[in-house]
Amino acid sequence: MGVGKSITEIEIGERASSVKTVGECDVYGFAGITGDFNPIHVNEEYAKTTRFGKRIAHGGLVLGLIAPAMGMQLPGLGTIILDLYIRWKAPVYIGDTITAELEVIDKDEARNIVTFKCSWKNQDGTVVAEGKSKAMPPRKNQK
Amino acid sequence: MGVGKSITEIEIGERASSVKTVGECDVYGFAGITGDFNPIHVNEEYAKTTRFGKRIAHGGLVLGLIAPAMGMQLPGLGTIILDLYIRWKAPVYIGDTITAELEVIDKDEARNIVTFKCSWKNQDGTVVAEGKSKAMPPRKNQK
Amino acid sequence: MGVGKSITEIEIGERASSVKTVGECDVYGFAGITGDFNPIHVNEEYAKTTRFGKRIAHGGLVLGLIAPAMGMQLPGLGTIILDLYIRWKAPVYIGDTITAELEVIDKDEARNIVTFKCSWKNQDGTVVAEGKSKAMPPRKNQK
Amino acid sequence: MGVGKSITEIEIGERASSVKTVGECDVYGFAGITGDFNPIHVNEEYAKTTRFGKRIAHGGLVLGLIAPAMGMQLPGLGTIILDLYIRWKAPVYIGDTITAELEVIDKDEARNIVTFKCSWKNQDGTVVAEGKSKAMPPRKNQK
Repeated sequence: MGVGKSITEIEIGERASSVKTVGECDVYGFAGITGDFNPIHVNEEYAKTTRFGKRIAHGGLVLGLIAPAMGMQLPGLGTIILDLYIRWKAPVYIGDTITAELEVIDKDEARNIVTFKCSWKNQDGTVVAEGKSKAMPPRKNQK
Repeated sequence: MGVGKSITEIEIGERASSVKTVGECDVYGFAGITGDFNPIHVNEEYAKTTRFGKRIAHGGLVLGLIAPAMGMQLPGLGTIILDLYIRWKAPVYIGDTITAELEVIDKDEARNIVTFKCSWKNQDGTVVAEGKSKAMPPRKNQK
Repeated sequence: MGVGKSITEIEIGERASSVKTVGECDVYGFAGITGDFNPIHVNEEYAKTTRFGKRIAHGGLVLGLIAPAMGMQLPGLGTIILDLYIRWKAPVYIGDTITAELEVIDKDEARNIVTFKCSWKNQDGTVVAEGKSKAMPPRKNQK
Repeated sequence: MGVGKSITEIEIGERASSVKTVGECDVYGFAGITGDFNPIHVNEEYAKTTRFGKRIAHGGLVLGLIAPAMGMQLPGLGTIILDLYIRWKAPVYIGDTITAELEVIDKDEARNIVTFKCSWKNQDGTVVAEGKSKAMPPRKNQK
């Protein structure tokens, strides 16, 4: 199966990203999983009357788009995500293409903890969210 | 449609929660939305070889379970979630019943910002995650 | 429940088809089931830069559209599909209406095997894929 | 975004694979996308009366599990899959963990075509399907 990078193989400044066009069915699927049927996500008529003007994606969905980058690329398989802070800055509309990006900003080899800066941008380069996360990379010879 | 509570109607100590048994299709659906096919989520044979012993839910999915409480109950409709910090403490397995709970711990009427303590517990009462979030409740006569 | 046609009831030249407009949620759902998040399927910005110009459906999704014709109509219930060859010839875009058609081109009563020619056409009549498949129809008094 | 391997970078004997535990919701999702509601896939009572004894996954779903390996790993981004032959040999049940594997068995640099042997195995090592596929890897400086 392979194992992700251990902390000694990870360099500060290293990056990984994942990209997806957020479909209506992503938003509806997320509503169905979490139970968040806030009309701003699933009621187009309601959304028209708000400052957003149309349905927007859930903040948790946007956050989740960074998971493949962390769990499958950097550090990758075997990573334990410890925590995450996210600040949402701009709405994500159905049809927006979101790039979720990680950058290693610190590592503590003694405690086996890597710190990432996280950002989420749309197709126009607008930062829709940003944050920070700590994770434990897999140790060598360990899953 | 109704509007959620304004900041003057919200009291410190107030709580709301949402509860769901996490199904295999929630985990698979979340993988399908985010692209996070980390084998710890979708490969039972791999999961058996890890410290967890079986497939676990995505951290972002667990987080998302609090969204109905915030966006639909407290403050409710029209709320803008500003940020969220989450620390994952224990695995959530397929079949676990998670209670996501909010508690108002602070409010800043001048800036219209409420601060919540968040916690996620499983059916045994184990805290699987905890965190903090800031949100802007709807203003009166406004969506 | 009923049983499909046995080999003696099937005639060479007989046809069946199924038709569907491929939705964005079909493509996203297929990505979510298989794990194929190739950006040509789920990233509109990337797709714009390719020869296709927009997101296309997965080849396996197109193939799957013939399954209802074979398993539910001809031969129908109780059929065992043995093999299938498919050659993709043109892209299927989100919003295309695909007609998947079967035609019986051979039958071997001794071995209980029927051979089908398969074709997939879009709303303009363009053949987007074609192929061949062998299946065992249900035997009489048997499921 | 990066580009997959060009034909000169691909070696005969090279392999890639993807693995997933097939969930009930994968089978139901595939039924919902394709319209193949054959009772062998979605009717447990019917399935009990057949030689299989319980619901099985669609052949097209099994096939699709190889797509991430081909389109995302080998050759990867920018690959055009030309054709595929598959022969199903054993049933895939809900809950089975399927490893879909590719192996390069031939390459034609003049025509830019790579030939793969494909196999699908379950958790017991049983070959549930096998086949062959031709694909065009991305050319250098091209998507």
